[in-house]
Amino acid sequence: MKAVVYRDAHSVAVEDVDDPRIEAPTDVLVRITTTAICGSDLHMYEGRTVADTGIVFGHENMGIVEEVGSGVTRVRAGDRVSLPFNVACGFCRNCLSGKTAFCLTTNPPYAGAAYGYVGMGPYTGGQAEYLRVPFADFNCLVLPPGDEHENDFAMLADIFPTGYHATVLADLNPGETIAVFGAGPVGLMAAYSAMIKGASKVFVVDKVPHRLQLAEQIGAIPIDFSAGDPVEQITDQTDGVGVDKGVDAVGYQATVSSGEEQPAVVLDQLVDAVRHTGRLGVVGLYLPQDPGAPDENAANGRLLFNIGRFFEKGQKMGTGQADAKAYNAQLRDLIVAGRATPSFVVSKELPLDEAPDAYERFDRREEGYSKVVLRPGKAA
Amino acid sequence: MKAVVYRDAHSVAVEDVDDPRIEAPTDVLVRITTTAICGSDLHMYEGRTVADTGIVFGHENMGIVEEVGSGVTRVRAGDRVSLPFNVACGFCRNCLSGKTAFCLTTNPPYAGAAYGYVGMGPYTGGQAEYLRVPFADFNCLVLPPGDEHENDFAMLADIFPTGYHATVLADLNPGETIAVFGAGPVGLMAAYSAMIKGASKVFVVDKVPHRLQLAEQIGAIPIDFSAGDPVEQITDQTDGVGVDKGVDAVGYQATVSSGEEQPAVVLDQLVDAVRHTGRLGVVGLYLPQDPGAPDENAANGRLLFNIGRFFEKGQKMGTGQADAKAYNAQLRDLIVAGRATPSFVVSKELPLDEAPDAYERFDRREEGYSKVVLRPGKAA
Amino acid sequence: MKAVVYRDAHSVAVEDVDDPRIEAPTDVLVRITTTAICGSDLHMYEGRTVADTGIVFGHENMGIVEEVGSGVTRVRAGDRVSLPFNVACGFCRNCLSGKTAFCLTTNPPYAGAAYGYVGMGPYTGGQAEYLRVPFADFNCLVLPPGDEHENDFAMLADIFPTGYHATVLADLNPGETIAVFGAGPVGLMAAYSAMIKGASKVFVVDKVPHRLQLAEQIGAIPIDFSAGDPVEQITDQTDGVGVDKGVDAVGYQATVSSGEEQPAVVLDQLVDAVRHTGRLGVVGLYLPQDPGAPDENAANGRLLFNIGRFFEKGQKMGTGQADAKAYNAQLRDLIVAGRATPSFVVSKELPLDEAPDAYERFDRREEGYSKVVLRPGKAA
Amino acid sequence: MKAVVYRDAHSVAVEDVDDPRIEAPTDVLVRITTTAICGSDLHMYEGRTVADTGIVFGHENMGIVEEVGSGVTRVRAGDRVSLPFNVACGFCRNCLSGKTAFCLTTNPPYAGAAYGYVGMGPYTGGQAEYLRVPFADFNCLVLPPGDEHENDFAMLADIFPTGYHATVLADLNPGETIAVFGAGPVGLMAAYSAMIKGASKVFVVDKVPHRLQLAEQIGAIPIDFSAGDPVEQITDQTDGVGVDKGVDAVGYQATVSSGEEQPAVVLDQLVDAVRHTGRLGVVGLYLPQDPGAPDENAANGRLLFNIGRFFEKGQKMGTGQADAKAYNAQLRDLIVAGRATPSFVVSKELPLDEAPDAYERFDRREEGYSKVVLRPGKAA
Repeated sequence: MKAVVYRDAHSVAVEDVDDPRIEAPTDVLVRITTTAICGSDLHMYEGRTVADTGIVFGHENMGIVEEVGSGVTRVRAGDRVSLPFNVACGFCRNCLSGKTAFCLTTNPPYAGAAYGYVGMGPYTGGQAEYLRVPFADFNCLVLPPGDEHENDFAMLADIFPTGYHATVLADLNPGETIAVFGAGPVGLMAAYSAMIKGASKVFVVDKVPHRLQLAEQIGAIPIDFSAGDPVEQITDQTDGVGVDKGVDAVGYQATVSSGEEQPAVVLDQLVDAVRHTGRLGVVGLYLPQDPGAPDENAANGRLLFNIGRFFEKGQKMGTGQADAKAYNAQLRDLIVAGRATPSFVVSKELPLDEAPDAYERFDRREEGYSKVVLRPGKAA
Repeated sequence: MKAVVYRDAHSVAVEDVDDPRIEAPTDVLVRITTTAICGSDLHMYEGRTVADTGIVFGHENMGIVEEVGSGVTRVRAGDRVSLPFNVACGFCRNCLSGKTAFCLTTNPPYAGAAYGYVGMGPYTGGQAEYLRVPFADFNCLVLPPGDEHENDFAMLADIFPTGYHATVLADLNPGETIAVFGAGPVGLMAAYSAMIKGASKVFVVDKVPHRLQLAEQIGAIPIDFSAGDPVEQITDQTDGVGVDKGVDAVGYQATVSSGEEQPAVVLDQLVDAVRHTGRLGVVGLYLPQDPGAPDENAANGRLLFNIGRFFEKGQKMGTGQADAKAYNAQLRDLIVAGRATPSFVVSKELPLDEAPDAYERFDRREEGYSKVVLRPGKAA
Repeated sequence: MKAVVYRDAHSVAVEDVDDPRIEAPTDVLVRITTTAICGSDLHMYEGRTVADTGIVFGHENMGIVEEVGSGVTRVRAGDRVSLPFNVACGFCRNCLSGKTAFCLTTNPPYAGAAYGYVGMGPYTGGQAEYLRVPFADFNCLVLPPGDEHENDFAMLADIFPTGYHATVLADLNPGETIAVFGAGPVGLMAAYSAMIKGASKVFVVDKVPHRLQLAEQIGAIPIDFSAGDPVEQITDQTDGVGVDKGVDAVGYQATVSSGEEQPAVVLDQLVDAVRHTGRLGVVGLYLPQDPGAPDENAANGRLLFNIGRFFEKGQKMGTGQADAKAYNAQLRDLIVAGRATPSFVVSKELPLDEAPDAYERFDRREEGYSKVVLRPGKAA
Repeated sequence: MKAVVYRDAHSVAVEDVDDPRIEAPTDVLVRITTTAICGSDLHMYEGRTVADTGIVFGHENMGIVEEVGSGVTRVRAGDRVSLPFNVACGFCRNCLSGKTAFCLTTNPPYAGAAYGYVGMGPYTGGQAEYLRVPFADFNCLVLPPGDEHENDFAMLADIFPTGYHATVLADLNPGETIAVFGAGPVGLMAAYSAMIKGASKVFVVDKVPHRLQLAEQIGAIPIDFSAGDPVEQITDQTDGVGVDKGVDAVGYQATVSSGEEQPAVVLDQLVDAVRHTGRLGVVGLYLPQDPGAPDENAANGRLLFNIGRFFEKGQKMGTGQADAKAYNAQLRDLIVAGRATPSFVVSKELPLDEAPDAYERFDRREEGYSKVVLRPGKAA
């Protein structure tokens, strides 16, 4: 089959690779109809990880079940399914408590697995014609048949649940105010989730104009941090006390308006922008090892964080990769009912063959390539 | 001052009564700008309670603080305030846990007090020019100054929090489906709250066409129970499994489509319409004593309820009067932010003098009188 | 293999039946080391259900894994395991939310399956030498190897989680007071769970002296309802306000002190004994169909329940069979750490061959037979 | 009256000061029967804060109500009361949500007030014969009359609720394992709370032998960090995966076994000792300004914290001073029922006059002075 294969730093190619096959009785094979490129794919693309040449990318996958293993009960050939980016077993201690992003079975001795990602287990990615799905009865989210809402459903594998997860970590309640730092696809999904959940005011902090426009378009209040201190802008619009809750959708590659990297700047600004007793949901990535970091502490995950202020304000912080399965059924139902259309973030639909070009442009942050979905079944 | 006074069954009058005054250091006096007539006022109006002649009605009150007691710290003269219908102390065991509808201080030895209501303590109602508010620092919700959103804010004293409370009792989560039985003002507020909280589908069951139209107007799915079994209609639209959650906004005066009273019919239908493991929020009134009941059991609060089916389905049920204060600040913030306009249920605005006529028409269920707000400050 | 087989009303026999075998790749076979007789087995034993002749009883099972299917990943031959009485799939909507007692996969079109129980699916019981366990990776709770704590662990399949579940339904918090109606094995486990969770006072209501003695022995306060109104006794010991929370571990076969059946008497007493805003956890069985009921309403699950008083007090009620898997790992850990020894309820240990005699004596409520564990591996 | 007055660094004296009096209608005056010295008093005593000469210390207070203001409803002269160390209003936004440690009314423009503490508002401390208590109906916890449990009740003002709060921030559930870093009075109360709540294993980390002995005495597992890496010791006793939850009862003055200060060492060890998806409750103090810190970052609250590892493990952290009022009623009920005796931490009972000597010895960490209670009414 054809698949998007990593060659070297800044180079992917669409190549022929072995077809996946049923390896365990609980597997299914899925023919991919739509697969999206994720910002985290760029980490590998840019050569900042130890991804091996030949790895197939793609963890935002959906498609049609083609073949089912003998131990599969619920899922049937022909089912249209979304696959959470987390590969999970459904029966380990963490999966049982809903924390499928920390599955103890699928990537031992680590906690958590994913398709097509370095360090996340032996699972080939879905930027390809076919995908093997382990523990299929647990992992497959069945969608209504047909091709309606294809791009909306494509957001269910990762970014819509991840954005929603941020609002869960932040414990957002109806009527509350929230600030989302970062208006990339995940930040926008967090803001969109906050709107769906009945927030009274949703602030979205970024400096890229078209991202801020998208935020405004869904009813959020754009905060341009290149135009002034974002904490001040938010405080001014919340009676001087700050927002109830906050989301970090940026992570360790945070920059200040000059463009300089300051890994903890978003965390510190969140602590300042959120009122006493508030909560922070952190889904932007922080790494225990970052070889490219400016100093040894940062290289080992240690950042200078204003824990004194955080403690004084009595805040709480929740972190970690999203458990996509914890939310995807509810979010699917909102899409089916016409109450959510997360595809507003999709900027381009391309056949699989154009993936190399799309990666290049996305890596250059070219407009129109902020969220690309690929259609493996479509001719180039 | 002028006030709406109960004379006798089916008779109220606007009369001169003594002005209220500060009785305790923690009191304030409020000049009423808007006060609404509630369906529960009709219970007294119709003579079905033991309301004494001379009682002043009105528990849905808002206005401007005119005078503050010496022990009041937060509230200031001139503040525009909404008063929760529950009169609560803020320091008893129940108030401390947010259950202000069951305050142990304000109506001993009973739990729970209200303005202008028989059996709910010595608190004169607010369908009048002025109102005494006890424990004012605790009870007053301060609103933005001016007169914007007056009718929206008028809903904060009772029906908006009560409708919201129903969805809390039912533990409604984003993406879930819910059925609300009863499309009177409280049922509509429950449905509206469910929409705000991100329900995927909200069914509203009634048989009165203009109520069902209002439900549809806010995005809910109207179910006319005079046109067929409501359980079947709901099940058919939820893949045969029923809704996730349900609300009873009808209470013991429930009727079947023939018009016959069957006190537990809504409860039984809810159990049938809600899926296994679902939850029911019951805000429709059930009484431990109902002198007008058809039989002795019902007269003592005992109804034939399908507890066998309820248990088999593993459902949960939450009941009781709403703790308005638990929700009114968040709901106010949604109104201020333009994210909620509960005044869509207001059907008529009248000066205080027209209250007797309004009661008569409301009691006859005349169209246009389903939710009347009175303006004591306006000349007749 | 040998198994306890239902013959007819009041008759079981130990007979040779076909050995179970792996039927699906996700099955395992378990050699039973201990299996307990449950009060609910008596429902079938007494002929009050439509149990077919030949059915093998037993849903409180533990043992050693003998054989594993090809699709089993986690569980290994030789593992010592406890099997929750609920047979569950792990991937249906209800299992995903932890409600394994309402699994939608294992007993369609019904919700919920169990081993060896009429109407609960095709799963042979474990009062036998071997047991087939479906969806084994999900259903098996692995125990420390060896034979330590055998009787404590035997309580993990049903009654310890069921008792614990009652306190979860009642939302018991540390420092609160609780009343448990019924001091059979499940009621005692509820009281024991309440002690473990840090309740300040645990009242246990029954009239059988040796049950009340067991309650006292674990630190609970025995209430003998044959010696006076239990509500009054409880209220007198809780400053006149009643307990915070309550548990019904009796169900529809409730009797008053005269011995007369009054199906809703425990529910009504709970409502009276629990304070305003309190919660009731109902694990005692109520049935939607009860052919032996005194009247047609009760035969269809409809009981006269004081819903008026329940509503007035603003209480909540949670019901349904326990999701044993939701609690069994934590309870196992308490046993292993020496912090819980639920085996105090075990009254007798017998070889499998003595099951018929044990059923007969248990059915007569003979002392010493209130909780019998059987050892299939032991010679008679 | 006589009171413990701050003179200068390392010097307090018992002096005559003005008697407190009712200042607002909602005040009461309390005659102090018992007041404890807290570790946080040493911060002021050692001159490390900007405490003014003349300030009266003491925030762990209990006694008898002597006089009540005209706006006080619930509390009566003669009541025996415990006073939470947080001075709170009961009606601000934070108090309404139970976060009395962040009261917005009692110390504006800051959030949170306390008796006898620098920067925490104008409230004279209770290491004195009398104490003025503002918002008395809200702040007073009424105790059973008499003098039973005096030392147990004395722990209700601060350290028992603070220890309990730590387990709430850590979201400890029955059957789970937890590690508490720090076996001072607060750490011991956290461990004790964990035992009460049904933890399966409670590890307590310290290096002082008599503290570790107290931990063992209440059923916890002592971990001596001077004898080896505490993370390793804990991991070895939890199947290599670490504890479910963790508590930091040390704060920014954390030291390693050599005695060297490393402000974030406990936080980093907690992250390592707690398993993926676990939670940390931080009640040990971290400060936004610490003039005595070794470097400028630490002086401004910024510590090098391993946020990379924290994020990778998907952990959550809750922080902040305890809301004593949120827990003190339940804890009182456990004491009254004989289910909790927190006075096991009390090392010495002294008359007020001996306070200066007690401070000196406590400051030197002299054995027997780890938790001193003072009796103002007792002759020296």
